Amino acid sequence: MMKQLLLFGVWLIGALQPLRAQNDSLLIRKIYDEALDSHVAYNYLEYLSNRIGGRLSGSPQAAAAVEYMRAVMDTLPFDTVYLQPVMVPHWVRGDKEEARALSDRRGSIDLRICALGNSVGTGEGGISAPVVEVHSFDELKALGRKKIEGKIVFFNVPMNQHHVETFAAYGEAVRYRVLGASEAAKLGAVAVVVRSVGTALDDEPHTGSLRYEEGVPPIPAVAVSAKGAERLSALLRQDPSTRLFIETHCRMLPDVLSYNVIGEVWGTQRDTIIAVGGHLDAWDNGDGAHDDGAGCVQSVEAIRLLRKLGVKPRYTWRVVLFMNEENGLRGGMEYARVARERGEHHLLALESDAGGFSPRGFSFDMAPEQFRRIQALLKNTLELYGLHIFRLGGSGADISPLKGSATILAGLRPDSQRYFDYHHTAIDTFDKINRRELALGAAAMASLVYLANQGLLH
Amino acid sequence: MMKQLLLFGVWLIGALQPLRAQNDSLLIRKIYDEALDSHVAYNYLEYLSNRIGGRLSGSPQAAAAVEYMRAVMDTLPFDTVYLQPVMVPHWVRGDKEEARALSDRRGSIDLRICALGNSVGTGEGGISAPVVEVHSFDELKALGRKKIEGKIVFFNVPMNQHHVETFAAYGEAVRYRVLGASEAAKLGAVAVVVRSVGTALDDEPHTGSLRYEEGVPPIPAVAVSAKGAERLSALLRQDPSTRLFIETHCRMLPDVLSYNVIGEVWGTQRDTIIAVGGHLDAWDNGDGAHDDGAGCVQSVEAIRLLRKLGVKPRYTWRVVLFMNEENGLRGGMEYARVARERGEHHLLALESDAGGFSPRGFSFDMAPEQFRRIQALLKNTLELYGLHIFRLGGSGADISPLKGSATILAGLRPDSQRYFDYHHTAIDTFDKINRRELALGAAAMASLVYLANQGLLH
Repeated sequence: MMKQLLLFGVWLIGALQPLRAQNDSLLIRKIYDEALDSHVAYNYLEYLSNRIGGRLSGSPQAAAAVEYMRAVMDTLPFDTVYLQPVMVPHWVRGDKEEARALSDRRGSIDLRICALGNSVGTGEGGISAPVVEVHSFDELKALGRKKIEGKIVFFNVPMNQHHVETFAAYGEAVRYRVLGASEAAKLGAVAVVVRSVGTALDDEPHTGSLRYEEGVPPIPAVAVSAKGAERLSALLRQDPSTRLFIETHCRMLPDVLSYNVIGEVWGTQRDTIIAVGGHLDAWDNGDGAHDDGAGCVQSVEAIRLLRKLGVKPRYTWRVVLFMNEENGLRGGMEYARVARERGEHHLLALESDAGGFSPRGFSFDMAPEQFRRIQALLKNTLELYGLHIFRLGGSGADISPLKGSATILAGLRPDSQRYFDYHHTAIDTFDKINRRELALGAAAMASLVYLANQGLLH
Repeated sequence: MMKQLLLFGVWLIGALQPLRAQNDSLLIRKIYDEALDSHVAYNYLEYLSNRIGGRLSGSPQAAAAVEYMRAVMDTLPFDTVYLQPVMVPHWVRGDKEEARALSDRRGSIDLRICALGNSVGTGEGGISAPVVEVHSFDELKALGRKKIEGKIVFFNVPMNQHHVETFAAYGEAVRYRVLGASEAAKLGAVAVVVRSVGTALDDEPHTGSLRYEEGVPPIPAVAVSAKGAERLSALLRQDPSTRLFIETHCRMLPDVLSYNVIGEVWGTQRDTIIAVGGHLDAWDNGDGAHDDGAGCVQSVEAIRLLRKLGVKPRYTWRVVLFMNEENGLRGGMEYARVARERGEHHLLALESDAGGFSPRGFSFDMAPEQFRRIQALLKNTLELYGLHIFRLGGSGADISPLKGSATILAGLRPDSQRYFDYHHTAIDTFDKINRRELALGAAAMASLVYLANQGLLH
């Protein structure tokens, strides 16, 4: 009898499996319906973009964004909403950014530039020097100190348009923005101009942070628009003795107290965490609509959707809006430090930081054999919603300090074609957001959180 | 010996297969590289959108578009470029489109409208009548002649936002635009106002053609913006006696001679055709950038790419820029008639008419068992380029008259989230085009043509 009961039990579990899969599918359908009906995320993002705007770490706008998102989350059914303190760098652009190429034979041309984040400025009066155009670090090194000393180095390396995924091209090109200043300074350069890392051939300069190497003199660094880079390069071909004038007033101020904004829904297993997030800071030249206002409001919306549909939290769901992804990653590092200190375990940490475009899937940092086990489930459950890309490798910057300790790190992968037209520019604005695309991203995130919550991903 | 030779032959074919697959993959990689490097399609579309603009059948702009695209194709390595004559309807919008809702108790509101294509106008002085709001044909019929006679019927049926593929929602909602006027006229209505078939909640009215049923009096029909529909509906709830004033001056003129623009690259098997196309006509209120300037320039670019890469045409490649898709389909019908008359066989006819957005795959009208045979090849060859959707059902309007005679009809399936924000409106303009997305679509089309040309799809 006991044996028969046991067999019946085994049979029952097997028989209930399809039913459970059906229930999961129905719930995910409801997530999408609710996301596509509601304009909640879109309306939050409108405020964040149009009323607050660019919100670089340490700025009054960053403080306003913290307060706004906390207030928003206070209106939603979280068990707690709180601010996690973190000291952040406070870099300011200053009131002047000018560059002009001057050729005795060909006249002068004004260039649209912006200082790179964390850069020192030239100060009042600017810098004027001859220009050396290079296309790689190898070329720079081959030229050597003799040809570089006292010059302005112009890194003219366009993004490789052949990559279908634009992030692959970004990864290749961005090193000149991040490392160019110190590499040039090692050879005695007085400043660097970096071709904007972007996909469009337009006149928008793209900012973004640089990293000064310790022990190397920090020199001023600016990005020039793609069109400006083409013009400057043409002028240099016509007149190699062309000089460049640059004036920037940017500078680094003392660190400032800021916050990660966190909301929690407590689960039955309270110390096992499913985290979803984006970063709240955004470059000062635009409104940070795609980078990464979109990821923030999608994260909040993902949890709102699950609450609205009455899903029971087996684990603690946590929305984390990270501060200072753009020029320090202090928020992400502090978040991981506190989680370690508290002995929390992250079952899943999911980040949206690739724009609010039509979602195409997810990338994962997790054990390969475990990833292979869940691939079929992801396909069967989510392809229906236009999600086809489930790949190993790459999640998100803010959650990267959790690597090694979290079971699954994941990143939402939206269509990448338009992202680097807007990324870090003055035109990363709310009018570039499509309401349905934003909502579909939030629904995709909520669906992945749901699957993790049901214990289906581990 | 003979038998051994035969066996060797069979072995050789097997051994060469992977090599051939590798060559195909390399060629497709080259197609993408060339498409992403060149801005050819984008530049053609800039001219078509910004210099010519809306080009409805019979208009001077349609004639200019025919001349421009013929001239463009004359500069490319086609074996012949010619115009295929076709008589097309000539509907004109006229110089006035106005609508106002008038409530004695609540005042009046102006509504943003546009006449539906092929509609009769109200003429000078307009029409004024009470309004009846309905949400389905069933509701209209239930109201009956008594409640409808002498009234203006307001079809207020929004697109169902729950569909992830917006074309599914379009298919459902568009029937009120196409059939609403005659259905209402059967019950004595004097005019109809149809809520715009679009995804955004904005103030842009979406035009599009209607079909008058024979033997039913043609009554004036207009589309109202989604916001206008919401306002009108709210006013009707507050004051059911609200009247509507509409004035439109649109009218149908006699048919006009126009053309399909055709370019051919002759293949070894000359009467077996691989056709790629889009439609050259576009609604007059916008610039027809996405609908369907994009499809036209992508078609030209697809063949340019194959020529540039030196692919040998086994079959005849034909670009067909169809006239009059929007309000008659005369170009598509004439093209199929002439093909039949000439005894041509279409191995593949591929249409791009869903916007110049990031391509997601192809849909096919073909024998299901044959489709199942090529599915794995398509996935293996094209997933790498972000193409994941290969499905049976749906190709394109212009090529639909080839159904039954062509081996394969196919439609490019771009991401559909933004299409119905712009479709048939004043904001279907060139600034909504992303250069990379447009190029990727052309590359996807060229790749499918290449596979067909290599004999791999049949």
